[in-house]
Amino acid sequence: MIASLQNDTFLRACLRQATDYTPVWLMRQAGRYLPEYRATRAQAGSFMGLATNTDFATEVTLQPLDRYSLDAAILFSDILTVPDAMGLGLTFVQGEGPRFATPVRDEAAVARLEVPDMAKLRYVFDAVTSIRKALNGRVPLIGFSGSPWTLACYMVEGAGSDDYRLVKTMLYQRPDLLHKMLAVNADAVAAYLNAQIEAGAQAVMIFDSWGGVLADAAFHTFSLDYTARVLRQLKRQHEGAIIPRLVFTKGGGMWLEAMGQLDCEVLGLDWTVNLAKARAQVGEQGLGQKAKALQGNMDPNALFANPAQIKAEVVNVLNSFGRPHTDSSQTGPTHIFNLGHGISQHTPPENVKVLVDAVHAHSRSMRATRT
Amino acid sequence: MIASLQNDTFLRACLRQATDYTPVWLMRQAGRYLPEYRATRAQAGSFMGLATNTDFATEVTLQPLDRYSLDAAILFSDILTVPDAMGLGLTFVQGEGPRFATPVRDEAAVARLEVPDMAKLRYVFDAVTSIRKALNGRVPLIGFSGSPWTLACYMVEGAGSDDYRLVKTMLYQRPDLLHKMLAVNADAVAAYLNAQIEAGAQAVMIFDSWGGVLADAAFHTFSLDYTARVLRQLKRQHEGAIIPRLVFTKGGGMWLEAMGQLDCEVLGLDWTVNLAKARAQVGEQGLGQKAKALQGNMDPNALFANPAQIKAEVVNVLNSFGRPHTDSSQTGPTHIFNLGHGISQHTPPENVKVLVDAVHAHSRSMRATRT
Repeated sequence: MIASLQNDTFLRACLRQATDYTPVWLMRQAGRYLPEYRATRAQAGSFMGLATNTDFATEVTLQPLDRYSLDAAILFSDILTVPDAMGLGLTFVQGEGPRFATPVRDEAAVARLEVPDMAKLRYVFDAVTSIRKALNGRVPLIGFSGSPWTLACYMVEGAGSDDYRLVKTMLYQRPDLLHKMLAVNADAVAAYLNAQIEAGAQAVMIFDSWGGVLADAAFHTFSLDYTARVLRQLKRQHEGAIIPRLVFTKGGGMWLEAMGQLDCEVLGLDWTVNLAKARAQVGEQGLGQKAKALQGNMDPNALFANPAQIKAEVVNVLNSFGRPHTDSSQTGPTHIFNLGHGISQHTPPENVKVLVDAVHAHSRSMRATRT
Repeated sequence: MIASLQNDTFLRACLRQATDYTPVWLMRQAGRYLPEYRATRAQAGSFMGLATNTDFATEVTLQPLDRYSLDAAILFSDILTVPDAMGLGLTFVQGEGPRFATPVRDEAAVARLEVPDMAKLRYVFDAVTSIRKALNGRVPLIGFSGSPWTLACYMVEGAGSDDYRLVKTMLYQRPDLLHKMLAVNADAVAAYLNAQIEAGAQAVMIFDSWGGVLADAAFHTFSLDYTARVLRQLKRQHEGAIIPRLVFTKGGGMWLEAMGQLDCEVLGLDWTVNLAKARAQVGEQGLGQKAKALQGNMDPNALFANPAQIKAEVVNVLNSFGRPHTDSSQTGPTHIFNLGHGISQHTPPENVKVLVDAVHAHSRSMRATRT
């Protein structure tokens, strides 16, 4: 028996419903900047040891909620669990990031790819269920996956890259292979997110972390089209509740118009985007598009400033979006506060409290003032 | 006595004058992908040994012109020569990129900064004069510098960075210090480019390689305003010839409208930008802005495809800009073909010939067809 939700501000904002204040959560909010995370991580022995253990994953997911008045929890996991389940052999080398033992670089390797048995990802779904139970209705839980293109980047490169030479060589030289991989990835991501929804995720987010490295035309063909293929397959509701779908393309600000056509509820924005312009483009009732809630977009590095400066930056971001609508009888423009990218591991934890509290305080006062 | 120019296509396109074909040059065209470059580099012993030796710098600048029908040469040098002349101690560690011995991280270090004596950069100006002589009028020579913000990134970080945490901490915590540094940088860059112009540079380009990492508001305050400060101080003419000024902000596609207000002739674009949209925004006669010639923007990774695919990609980029104007009695939209970033060191040299020849052939045929 799962407890009913005490704070649905995030979910309401996702659905462009009026809220009393602007909800806030932070990408990578459960992570290395928290000493309690580092302690659990040390106990677990390795990153995957942490992610694959239900108790550890539950514990670290809840850690930031015990410190800060966050309005959502996000599953602690990694975007690369799906290719790992495909048999690519994911490891995390300390200080180097993820690495695949068997990258996918030729026709034979692509031909071997298939949607993995979701049983191999059971540790993720178990964690989702366990976290929902532990949350006990405090805030909603967000599930997530990497986008088909972002997974393909890692699958071909075998690790992070600064030029994406291998995956782009495939893109320009063997687009047929890349399309085949992306189709498998899209169907795998859809199955993965649907299983997270069934396990208890109350919203799902697709991280297109590397969409922004593509050329203009290539972004549409190799990233956006496959994100759309995922979205088409996702469950819209679970146990009577609508499951909002969030899409975040890092570096995708130039393609907002095209992303406005996606069948999802929320678009995440990085800090290079002007929120007022984005709201005008895709946040209001658009022409032939479903208007989107907008999520973002403070520069994570602003958290290295002093408290007064952090508050000022929060106010800048909130004011840049402007006053969200407040009419509870209809939908309208809404904003979910977040960073424009994951929080830095070097962030002083006390500064996050300043941010969260400032979002709540200023966004309440914005609604109180009629302009 | 300097020979008169035999191929002024690039300069004409910069000034939005009609040309018979679309001129092409490539960022980092003199570089590691060429075996003859690697041979000279080995002789020189180090990158700075190469850059500071007039004969070597001249030799490598001309190497790509001997292989390909490029329409411009660009000075072989580095964007970090100016902070080096400020006394920061530039070195290049093999495989790691540039590094400063004395980064600028506090009030005292910023207070010590001043526009360096241009005599310290004489090796650059000597190279410019030597290259002009060696070119003997084949094509025009482009001089360049890093932008004030891009120099500040390296000066504070002390090296490349993937999060720009130190320079952004200064930005959010001590904006006064950063503004002071940027003012010195802008005046130094202006003096540096003017000295290159006096030494023979026929166009000058400002590389804002890291403008794209800034948040929307911060880009305008900390990058664009100081690029404008450089432009205001640049010589407009030298020995009767207009000196076109090019500005390239990597990742700056979202800010094109603001960049359209810059007092320069050409905007460089990376591959994420849609050339047709950019042309409509800033390439046609705008409202209250000086229209710009546009330079770019093929993904350098497309050079890893096969010849037919490279040609197809060249055609895509040229067609994306569309037919440049052809009326020699007036100015109008023009395109300078380039990559969207520096050419990769792994590029097969024979593929560059395919690109250059395809640009010339297809752009001639575009002009022949009335549409």
